[in-house]
Amino acid sequence: MTPPYPDRPAAAAAAIAVADNNDHLVQSDNPDHPANLIPALCAKFWTLGWVTGTGGGASIRDDDLVYLAPSGVQKELMKPADIYVLSLAAQAKSLDRRSRVYLRSPAQYKPSQCTPLFLAAFTKRGAGCCIHTHSQWAVLVTLLLETRGSGSDGEFCINNIEQIKGFGRGFQKTGNLGYHDTLRIPVIENTAHEEDLTEFLEEAMDRYPDTYAVLVRRHGVYVWGENVHKAKTQCESLDYLFQLAVEMHKLGLPWMTEIEPVKTSRS
Amino acid sequence: MTPPYPDRPAAAAAAIAVADNNDHLVQSDNPDHPANLIPALCAKFWTLGWVTGTGGGASIRDDDLVYLAPSGVQKELMKPADIYVLSLAAQAKSLDRRSRVYLRSPAQYKPSQCTPLFLAAFTKRGAGCCIHTHSQWAVLVTLLLETRGSGSDGEFCINNIEQIKGFGRGFQKTGNLGYHDTLRIPVIENTAHEEDLTEFLEEAMDRYPDTYAVLVRRHGVYVWGENVHKAKTQCESLDYLFQLAVEMHKLGLPWMTEIEPVKTSRS
Amino acid sequence: MTPPYPDRPAAAAAAIAVADNNDHLVQSDNPDHPANLIPALCAKFWTLGWVTGTGGGASIRDDDLVYLAPSGVQKELMKPADIYVLSLAAQAKSLDRRSRVYLRSPAQYKPSQCTPLFLAAFTKRGAGCCIHTHSQWAVLVTLLLETRGSGSDGEFCINNIEQIKGFGRGFQKTGNLGYHDTLRIPVIENTAHEEDLTEFLEEAMDRYPDTYAVLVRRHGVYVWGENVHKAKTQCESLDYLFQLAVEMHKLGLPWMTEIEPVKTSRS
Amino acid sequence: MTPPYPDRPAAAAAAIAVADNNDHLVQSDNPDHPANLIPALCAKFWTLGWVTGTGGGASIRDDDLVYLAPSGVQKELMKPADIYVLSLAAQAKSLDRRSRVYLRSPAQYKPSQCTPLFLAAFTKRGAGCCIHTHSQWAVLVTLLLETRGSGSDGEFCINNIEQIKGFGRGFQKTGNLGYHDTLRIPVIENTAHEEDLTEFLEEAMDRYPDTYAVLVRRHGVYVWGENVHKAKTQCESLDYLFQLAVEMHKLGLPWMTEIEPVKTSRS
Repeated sequence: MTPPYPDRPAAAAAAIAVADNNDHLVQSDNPDHPANLIPALCAKFWTLGWVTGTGGGASIRDDDLVYLAPSGVQKELMKPADIYVLSLAAQAKSLDRRSRVYLRSPAQYKPSQCTPLFLAAFTKRGAGCCIHTHSQWAVLVTLLLETRGSGSDGEFCINNIEQIKGFGRGFQKTGNLGYHDTLRIPVIENTAHEEDLTEFLEEAMDRYPDTYAVLVRRHGVYVWGENVHKAKTQCESLDYLFQLAVEMHKLGLPWMTEIEPVKTSRS
Repeated sequence: MTPPYPDRPAAAAAAIAVADNNDHLVQSDNPDHPANLIPALCAKFWTLGWVTGTGGGASIRDDDLVYLAPSGVQKELMKPADIYVLSLAAQAKSLDRRSRVYLRSPAQYKPSQCTPLFLAAFTKRGAGCCIHTHSQWAVLVTLLLETRGSGSDGEFCINNIEQIKGFGRGFQKTGNLGYHDTLRIPVIENTAHEEDLTEFLEEAMDRYPDTYAVLVRRHGVYVWGENVHKAKTQCESLDYLFQLAVEMHKLGLPWMTEIEPVKTSRS
Repeated sequence: MTPPYPDRPAAAAAAIAVADNNDHLVQSDNPDHPANLIPALCAKFWTLGWVTGTGGGASIRDDDLVYLAPSGVQKELMKPADIYVLSLAAQAKSLDRRSRVYLRSPAQYKPSQCTPLFLAAFTKRGAGCCIHTHSQWAVLVTLLLETRGSGSDGEFCINNIEQIKGFGRGFQKTGNLGYHDTLRIPVIENTAHEEDLTEFLEEAMDRYPDTYAVLVRRHGVYVWGENVHKAKTQCESLDYLFQLAVEMHKLGLPWMTEIEPVKTSRS
Repeated sequence: MTPPYPDRPAAAAAAIAVADNNDHLVQSDNPDHPANLIPALCAKFWTLGWVTGTGGGASIRDDDLVYLAPSGVQKELMKPADIYVLSLAAQAKSLDRRSRVYLRSPAQYKPSQCTPLFLAAFTKRGAGCCIHTHSQWAVLVTLLLETRGSGSDGEFCINNIEQIKGFGRGFQKTGNLGYHDTLRIPVIENTAHEEDLTEFLEEAMDRYPDTYAVLVRRHGVYVWGENVHKAKTQCESLDYLFQLAVEMHKLGLPWMTEIEPVKTSRS
């Protein structure tokens, strides 16, 4: 799958896109093509309660091309023909950060308000996939943190749980977190308009250069990764930890502990 | 799909219906035909715990025709041939509000007691689809409200949760609720006979002209929308909020909060 | 589907059964044939957590014939060829209540210890289907009752919940329970051997002639009905009420309440 | 299915394996072949929340051959071609316990760190299948035990619950546990590297010769059995008991009780 028109200026590409709407960009027999994967992933996420009632979504980047679910669709019913496609190069040349030029726009839909947030993961972190969930566990974690009051409400921390190993050590680093490492996920405040989250998401990325996720208070979470595999498995591990954290809170168990590493015959 | 006999008087239509039972009204290869959609939706709702043990149901209106699930069927096993069809125009001409003339009645079933409640959403609010669930989250919310005592037990309120944006602003209004808006869902008391809920449901619609849902104490919820998409996604968003509200209550978190809107570069 | 050899003595039928193992009794293209229905139902029950780890099961009676799942099988993987078949008439003529003559016994399995409990529902109540679940909600309800101490620990009671209408009024009675009626389910103590529950289950049926279910402390529940439809939907409604009851207990809400019936325009 | 090269020295077998990678070892039309069963089981376990985010896994032994899932794959998407195969005989002849010679290694993967733990169940207990889950119920049980402080935090005990009958009485013993028996599952502390758990898992097997499972603090559980059926149903029963135990704790109900056995007409 080669990105179309790689050496033409973005404006020309956009002009052509308008003419034929580039339907070929979302037509493939390959189940791993982004236009097939996004609907398959979103159907799975629906069963997990991540994208209830048209909330949440997912986006995949393949080199210069970004594939996006439209706004307001039932995520378990999405089809490849519903997918928007955007060129990062064309987007970079746009003078107005808020306007976007789509190589392909399905006539019956509106672009998702999540688009600039997905783009932040792609452009600032080189992510290949970004997932946004409205998981109740994510929301409940931000609500529990909120009761701690300003100062300690902006970060979810957990350590000494095996599932933490499901996360990479960070941007341009190799390897994964260890069992005793602390997973830190920044929390940003929700805004009235989802697009307005972008500046705060980007700030959080700057403050937490190694994070693969940002929680949004009373809203959900954005999780990304180098590729679909990593974004999806990190999102699963994180949702697992959020659910565990809520249950731990109900049982009076702290999220952070000091544990002496076990002495092994190798240590 | 055109409504049958649009220009004949209702009585004549009913007479013809009795003769051939209008099986063609529920026979279509189109998966979006109401007679196919209702069984597909109910099977999905069964997996969500919304229509357990034959409880709950769904109805779709297509112009003058109303498609209804029968009483007492296993909702995940329903078939198009099980569907009742009724003409709103014929119904409007009936002198007795409690009697109903069906264009199609499956011989082996009885009409659902929910019928007049679904009709209220169609005639008073122009809804295209109405869903009734026995979701435990809906029931638990009404039970929690009940403990607050008379006066404050008749309304579920929640604000400052992103999923609230899943609701339209109201009848004949455009746009959706915002993040900071308060979602208000009236609660009516349950009656011994489901049909008797109708007058109270209609009263609640009058008192809350913009609501898309009415909770029924110790029973469940009725949710509607302009079309199937909106009724279903609003029902999902509402069930999400009911579940979240129960979990928030367990964690000692209030449903209503005062939150200062975030200042963005646009505000 | 006619029962085989209706006019031959049971002993002769059993002798023939031994000869050819009556495989035709479990071979049918009809998805509603008991030998097809039991595996389909058990697969569904597995997803509900009712028959985890080979626990629980289901049996269907068709006139004189009783179809039974074998002992110790993975309930979601069962096949029609795994099903035992037994003649009630032959069984009635047996001098030893504990011995059973099967018309068909799959060679590789052992009969289920639940068999005499299912038979009690068929012979004492004329049930057409009996379901046994290990649902955690059922077990938790019996544990919560146990803490009330002897005297009030032998009956689960709940009223004023719509889902109660999912139950028939009782043996040889017509109609269903009403919203304000109290659903009463007897609880019997668990025994070391499941077969030994039979006498206590039968006693409970005598003390509660109208019940369609018996809870077994720290074990699960037996639910039956006139036919598969009624047994299955009553079992679903009951599991719904058990789950609701546990959640109500967590939230400090009582299972029994006094509620003034709503005055309607009909009352 | 015969193990390949049964009478050749392990080194020779390994040399041949390197040459052709023994793809035939994972190619079969039989759905019960380990290379087909492991992906099918893992897909099922994913829906149960046991192998979220690439965590957990399963291994099957067929005589001398051990089939293993690779490291870091999405468990619900695994394919037969992803499976590693190892010879126990060849492994036994290896001088270095930490090195492993695979008859088949999929080029694109790394072996799972769980391998030596699975091997412990196969070599020390003659197991035919071993399952490792990250089930949150298992993790929460270890966290609840941890709060009891050293001395009583190393064993999960529960009695007088019917589902306990789902476990065999122990290694080289016949029959299953009874209702009144106490199920005891040892808990070992988690190590920074999963392989380092092996020595502690083996120690726990020595201290609890009859156990079919070992809990790992803040991590999950290893469960095995003579064959796939027993490993899987014991794992289900155990997860059921862990979930029940967490709910019992929330409701203030003890895991261990003294109950007078019921007197039956047989006792």
